[in-house]
Amino acid sequence: MELSESQVTIVGLGLMGGSLAGALRGKCRRVVGVARRAESAETALARGFVDEGTVDMAEGVREADIVVLATPVRVIIRQLPELAPLLPKGCLLMDLGSTKGRIAAEMERLPEHIQPLGGHPMCGKEKSGIEVADPALYDGCTFILAPLKRTSAEALALGHELAEAAGAVPLVLEPERQDYIVAAVSHLPYLIACALVATADTTISADPASWEVVATGFRSTSRLAGSDVTMMTDILLTNREEVLKALDTYQERLREFASLVETADEEKMREILGAVRKIRRDMYPASQQVIE
Amino acid sequence: MELSESQVTIVGLGLMGGSLAGALRGKCRRVVGVARRAESAETALARGFVDEGTVDMAEGVREADIVVLATPVRVIIRQLPELAPLLPKGCLLMDLGSTKGRIAAEMERLPEHIQPLGGHPMCGKEKSGIEVADPALYDGCTFILAPLKRTSAEALALGHELAEAAGAVPLVLEPERQDYIVAAVSHLPYLIACALVATADTTISADPASWEVVATGFRSTSRLAGSDVTMMTDILLTNREEVLKALDTYQERLREFASLVETADEEKMREILGAVRKIRRDMYPASQQVIE
Repeated sequence: MELSESQVTIVGLGLMGGSLAGALRGKCRRVVGVARRAESAETALARGFVDEGTVDMAEGVREADIVVLATPVRVIIRQLPELAPLLPKGCLLMDLGSTKGRIAAEMERLPEHIQPLGGHPMCGKEKSGIEVADPALYDGCTFILAPLKRTSAEALALGHELAEAAGAVPLVLEPERQDYIVAAVSHLPYLIACALVATADTTISADPASWEVVATGFRSTSRLAGSDVTMMTDILLTNREEVLKALDTYQERLREFASLVETADEEKMREILGAVRKIRRDMYPASQQVIE
Repeated sequence: MELSESQVTIVGLGLMGGSLAGALRGKCRRVVGVARRAESAETALARGFVDEGTVDMAEGVREADIVVLATPVRVIIRQLPELAPLLPKGCLLMDLGSTKGRIAAEMERLPEHIQPLGGHPMCGKEKSGIEVADPALYDGCTFILAPLKRTSAEALALGHELAEAAGAVPLVLEPERQDYIVAAVSHLPYLIACALVATADTTISADPASWEVVATGFRSTSRLAGSDVTMMTDILLTNREEVLKALDTYQERLREFASLVETADEEKMREILGAVRKIRRDMYPASQQVIE
């Protein structure tokens, strides 16, 4: 099966699902969208993102070659066993959830005639809903594909093709490995940003001058604290152990930096700050960091 | 004395001093630049930032109405007593250092015929040196003015005029108050970013896939870790107590977030993350936060 011959059914027409539908339309035989609300299905149709929109799950997936669950992680976990009896034989069942461990465990229980494949596109926006969906959302983003042991090479290849057709760069990672990495590069930064905002709120916010002083550095460092609460709660609760491990290591590193300031050992300070700067620069060689 | 009639001498022709010279040229009687290296003075002259460039401090400040020290904080502390005997009576002596407490203490000791005024423009770039100086650097940035009790209203007004002439928005703050606020909005975010980079380095960096996954959230949160090491060492060592206090509060807040994940109390988590999100949004109402 190739993507161009496939019917892709996307369950959940929010920002992620709606954008994916729009990105895939014209690159596969047919794109069907299944929404919870009739208005979302109508909007997706009106915006040209789907060939057909419905609120009837059974109808939407009946002839699907690929089904993509674009709902929150814990909804995905609930939907997987409900969907299984509705899917045609050999159907590729993917999801777009930000954490993969618990989804993979649930996917293991699917009937053998279904091909499961975890997915996690590393893109998004602050706003949610079909109204802000954008077929260009996936352009250039890393799209993690998390196959199970039971996932066939053909199913993985089809998922790969789908990610590329959406404009993304596929990266294959085992579910546990993805959860470990994403805890450090995405979930930890979110909590770091939240704690910074909470610190500002309990200290300097009493001084009306503070917000005039707030510099671009604070803005960058605190940016993720503006993320969607439902999505982040879902993520923190389904990747709890990896997040706690990352937080432990982070707190340890932070104590080391505090002790560096405490002891005021200039030579050691310069050495450690210099090493950190080098690591950061090697990560993003072309970036321009603002200093204030 | 008004700015338009003044000779402004800027000591230190790096990014900050060079840019300020360029921004003020034409708006005062004369801009003189004092550099450590003859090449910097020549470049400032060639780029049209100064009317005169010199490496001779005594010559550069002899006829100054306003002297601005645009050197690192601990160099400023050393230069203040050296400069005092060279300055004309009534001269306004400002600085651009990022921390103000120790500079203010040193300014208190200046002879009475000198008018001291702390300054801290909240702008900058990753790169340093006269080569990257830009007269537009100060446009729209908050320029903190930290007067001492001995600073006259006239001297403060002249500093105000200078900041505005450079394109900045002046904000008057006592030195201790500025150090307290800036520790939380600028120095703490720097250390937070460093600890995040160090965490990534000691955990996920062993997995070659990690850097492909590194998302825009990590990029924002870690941005400040790329800041200039000499400048940051200077800042951390001269604002040590405020930075340690901010770090203490931050570590406390972070433990609260860790316990939120640990106990997995969904209702409480939603409530706290929602409150933090609201605070962040109220700070930057128009901003678009990227989620991944």
